[in-house]
Order: sequence, then C-alpha cells, then structure tokens
Amino acid sequence: MRATLIYGAGDIRVEDVPDAGLVEPTDALVRITRACICGSDLWPYQQREPTGPGERIGHEFLGVVDEVGSQVSGFRPGDVVVAPFLISDGTCEFCREGLTSSCRHGGMWGGAGDGGQGEAARVPLADGTLVRLPVEPDDERMPSLLTLSDVFATGHHAAVSAGVGPGSTVTVIGDGAVGLSAVLAAARLGAEQIVLMGRHPARTDLGREFGADEVVTERGDDGAARVRDLTGGDGTSAVLECVGTEQALEMALGAVRAGGAVSRVGLPQYEKGRLDVAHVFFRNVSLGGGVAPSRAYIPELLPDVLAGRVEPGRVFDRTIGLDEVPDGYRAMNDREALKVLITP
Amino acid sequence: MRATLIYGAGDIRVEDVPDAGLVEPTDALVRITRACICGSDLWPYQQREPTGPGERIGHEFLGVVDEVGSQVSGFRPGDVVVAPFLISDGTCEFCREGLTSSCRHGGMWGGAGDGGQGEAARVPLADGTLVRLPVEPDDERMPSLLTLSDVFATGHHAAVSAGVGPGSTVTVIGDGAVGLSAVLAAARLGAEQIVLMGRHPARTDLGREFGADEVVTERGDDGAARVRDLTGGDGTSAVLECVGTEQALEMALGAVRAGGAVSRVGLPQYEKGRLDVAHVFFRNVSLGGGVAPSRAYIPELLPDVLAGRVEPGRVFDRTIGLDEVPDGYRAMNDREALKVLITP
Repeated sequence: MRATLIYGAGDIRVEDVPDAGLVEPTDALVRITRACICGSDLWPYQQREPTGPGERIGHEFLGVVDEVGSQVSGFRPGDVVVAPFLISDGTCEFCREGLTSSCRHGGMWGGAGDGGQGEAARVPLADGTLVRLPVEPDDERMPSLLTLSDVFATGHHAAVSAGVGPGSTVTVIGDGAVGLSAVLAAARLGAEQIVLMGRHPARTDLGREFGADEVVTERGDDGAARVRDLTGGDGTSAVLECVGTEQALEMALGAVRAGGAVSRVGLPQYEKGRLDVAHVFFRNVSLGGGVAPSRAYIPELLPDVLAGRVEPGRVFDRTIGLDEVPDGYRAMNDREALKVLITP
Repeated sequence: MRATLIYGAGDIRVEDVPDAGLVEPTDALVRITRACICGSDLWPYQQREPTGPGERIGHEFLGVVDEVGSQVSGFRPGDVVVAPFLISDGTCEFCREGLTSSCRHGGMWGGAGDGGQGEAARVPLADGTLVRLPVEPDDERMPSLLTLSDVFATGHHAAVSAGVGPGSTVTVIGDGAVGLSAVLAAARLGAEQIVLMGRHPARTDLGREFGADEVVTERGDDGAARVRDLTGGDGTSAVLECVGTEQALEMALGAVRAGGAVSRVGLPQYEKGRLDVAHVFFRNVSLGGGVAPSRAYIPELLPDVLAGRVEPGRVFDRTIGLDEVPDGYRAMNDREALKVLITP
C-alpha cells in the first residue's frame, strides 16, 4: 500500500510500504477514505533532524473497517468509522473519566505504527479508539466528520478547558484551523462575545462566519490592549490560546479578565514557559488546557455535525490525492492553504 | 491610640498614633478586639528595606463598630464585625461575581491607611467590606471567627480553586496556618483522601485532626514521588500549594494527577515561575488560585464556624497583647509559634 513518511525537515515522501494488517486480536484494519494534514505535522516538517529510515506520519483519518481482530466486539467490516488522533482503550480510569488522552494503554499514530496519511491503518484497541459514523462512505459531511478526529475536538477542548458557556466573553488567539475551530466551539457553547486574534483576512472572514464578533489584527501588548479596549478595559473571561508559542501565551495573559481562564491547545513550542506571577496570582487567572481527549468529545459533537448545526469541515480549503501530500505540506507551511484534506 | 508599624526588616514597633476616625461617609470606625499576624506579614518582616517613617501593618481583625458614616446603612455602633483582609465595595461587577479581591474600588489595609494590628481602624466602604457576626464581643468562638478574615478563607479558596469536592483526592503543600486551613477546607468540602506535606510534627498533628489522612515529610522530587506512591502512582486530583515558593510549585506539579488542578494561595515569592510545559500540557493539568476573595466566602463559611462544625481557630497557638506584637513576629518567624492571636 501507499503511505506518507517523513525523513526530515521538508522531506515528506509517499512510498510503497507493507500492507497494514491485524497484529493483536484487539486491532481493526481500516481502509482510509479521508485524512488530513495537521498544524502540528508542520513542526517536524520544519524542524525534524534527518534520519535514515523515514517514519509514518499523520494522525487524523476516517474510513471503512476492512477486518477486525477476534476480540473486537464493537465493529465489523463495512462500518464507517473516525479515528481520534490518539489511541485509547476506553476502559481505564482516565478513559472512563473522559481524559482519553491520558489512557493508561493508549498511544499515538505514526512512528513505528501506521500513520493516518496512507491507504490503510492498523487501529490498536479498536473498541476503545474508533467511533462509528452513521453515514455512507461518500457522505458529503465527511470533511466535517473528519474534524472530530482532532481539529474541531481540539477547539472544543480549548473552550471547555476555559469554562466557556452561555454568556462567556472569549478571545481566541490564532486564526489557524484550531483557532477557527475554537471560535466555532465557543459559539456552539453559547459564548456571548468572541474576539478572534489573527491577521489573515481569508481566515478571519471564516472566523466571523463561525461566530467571531470582532477581529483583532494587532499582536503582542498592542493586541492584548485592543482586546481590553473591546471589553470595557477588563479583557475576556476566557482566552483560548491556539498557537503554542510563548508570545501567544503572554498575549493571552494580557487579554484575560481577572478571575478568568486561559486555556492552551496549541502544542507548546517552548520548553519552559515563564509565567508572570503577579498578573496571574493577584488576578486569580487560571491556566488550563492541553492535549484534547477527542475520543471523549465525539459523542457530544457528532450529533451537531450530522445535523449540520456546525460545519467545522469548512476549515479545509484544499483537497488533494495521496501522491500530492508532499505538496500539501508545502502549501500549508507556506500558508497557501489553511488545512489540506487528503482523499487516499 | 496604639498601633503596630513596620520600619524595616525585623523592626516592628507598637506606637502611639493619631486616633482612627471617620473620613468618608462610607466609613465605619471599628474598635479592634482580636487581630493576628499573617504568614504574609513575615515577608516584609524578613525583607523590607528600612524607611524613615514606619508603615501600619496587619490585615486580619474583628471588633465592635464604634461609629459609622452617614452613608453606611448596614451597620451601627455596637455591631460585632469581622473585616476581610481586603477592602471591597460589594457592588462592582467583580464583587457581584464573588471576586471581591478584584473589586474596582477596593484596597488593602496598612500602608497609608489603618492596619489591623492596632486598637482601632477606619474601615472604608464599610457596607461592602464588613460582615456582622451574630455573637457577643467575648464569644469563645472568636479565634475561629477571626480566621474568616483571611487564613481559613484562603485555605477554602485553595480548595475551591482546585475543584475540591466529594470524592476528591487532595495534596496540601505546607503545614503553616494556610496549609492547615486548606486541609480543613478540603475535608469540609468532602475530599476523600488528603495528603499533607509538612515536617513539623505539632503542625502536622493538627493537620491530621483537621482531616489529613497521610503526612509526607519528604520534599522536592522525593516528596512528589511519595504522594504518587500513596495514590497508586498517579498523584492527587487536586494539589493545594500553600507555601509560595518556586520549589513548592514544582513539587505540586509532580504530585498532581493527569487532568488534575494545582491551586496556589501562598503569596508567590518569585517573580516569574518556570512552568514545565510538557508535564502541564500533555497531562492536562490546570493551574489556578490566587488572592482569596475572603469577603465573598464568609457567608458560606460562617454558619459552620458558628455551629462548631469546623474550628479553624485552632491554628492559633499563642495569644498576646498589643505591646507584645514585636515578639509575636519574632516567634512566628522563628517557627516558635504557628499563628499568633492579638487581643488589643
């Protein structure tokens, strides 16, 4: 079969690899019908040291079950399924509590295992990991359903972690696909005012359609000051940091209201973050978020996607075949594309 | 009247000062019958640069209203009242939301205004700040009622900020008066397991009486590892950091369970805290807490204190007169006394 491998920064290749197949009795084999490229895939694309053998990459996909192991009880061949961006068993305490991203037996896609950007994948712990989708494989809602794997679930996690609910005032930092998903998630949860910080008009325009009331193009202290200006001087009760840089975190702390919450879902690109203690402590600002337990959120989000009440798949602005994946990385990295959908 | 002033590190004096009196029509004049020394008073006691004139100090007191301004409607002479450690108007948005520590018109005791460690104090914004106590001035519950001003309310804030409730597992870092109050508050809120980290037996013994199930005397990585050992390897869902040092914060991050919350109420003694991003982000640990809005908590805590269901006043292990205040500071600073009660 064909699959995507990364060999180093800027070096993405689609190659023939051994066919995916069952290994454990808890595995399922999924033929991938939709996948995509994640903003977090761009970090190794920009920075990875070259290595001899390539590594599988990609962690967002959906498809059709081809075969299941003897201990898989929840799925059978022909089921249309979405795979969250992390593997989880669904039975450990963390999974039962909804923190599937801390599953005791979970794992990640890619590396030594199969990646999502290929023709098929062996899915470990299939009963815990996969979610059945009550649609046909060619359903027109596929792009939106695919976002349940990661990007929309991650935006939702940002909003949930910052306590967004009816009446909340919200700042979303970042107009990438996660930031726009966070806008959509915040609006879905009933936020009263949503300020989107970003400076790419095509993206912020979609942000407005997703529910942003204001767009702030300034950055740094000026950006935070602008958010405060828009909120009577106070900042917003929730700030969703969807970038992952230290500068974005600082801006978040400048834009948050006393007693408010900053949540981070942008994969941190810094080892240790300096926290302005006076600002955080004296104003009772809390800092939360992290890796989204997307598996746990899918049951809540799926009905709204199926009903068309939200269309998170609108973040995809380019669709490519598997062989075009290297150019898809380039296009996202050059900001030519917001998010790239792959049809293997 | 007599009042306590600080002139510099180690230089506390009780002196004759002009009598406290009404200035604004929203003021009340309170004759102080009980006050105390706070752990946070020890920071200037240890570090303050010497200055020419001294500054009033002390921010925890209760007493009897002597006189009220023309615009004070909620109190009259003879009322027994407790003063929270911050002044608040009770009417701004933050006060209405329960974040009285961020009151738009609030302020602090001491400095240019009256301090709590004196014979009397002018109380600004009396209707918002003070809380009437339905007791006689010489009630035996006075020590516990005094802790509503700061220390018990602060322990409660630590527990609330970390989401402690029925079934929570909790680590409390610090066996000072705030840490012990946090133990009591966590137990009151229904915590299932409470681990107290401290190494002063007289204090940790009281901690056990307040509800701690385990005492961990190790510090640093060893201390965090011991908490994990006591919790099946995971750490506790809440960690209440009641010290205020960077080391204590690091220990908190090592003792917290994935998906859990660290709250800080120890006044931070560092300018910027380094946050271990991998640990916090990948484990979905949140960081909260701050300056307690004690005024907002008193209505909830008062009934339990009046009924004797909690006795937070047991943290006082020494009672002194006003003239002995300098020695009270010394005794607390030398860890000879846990917390010193003053009867002016």
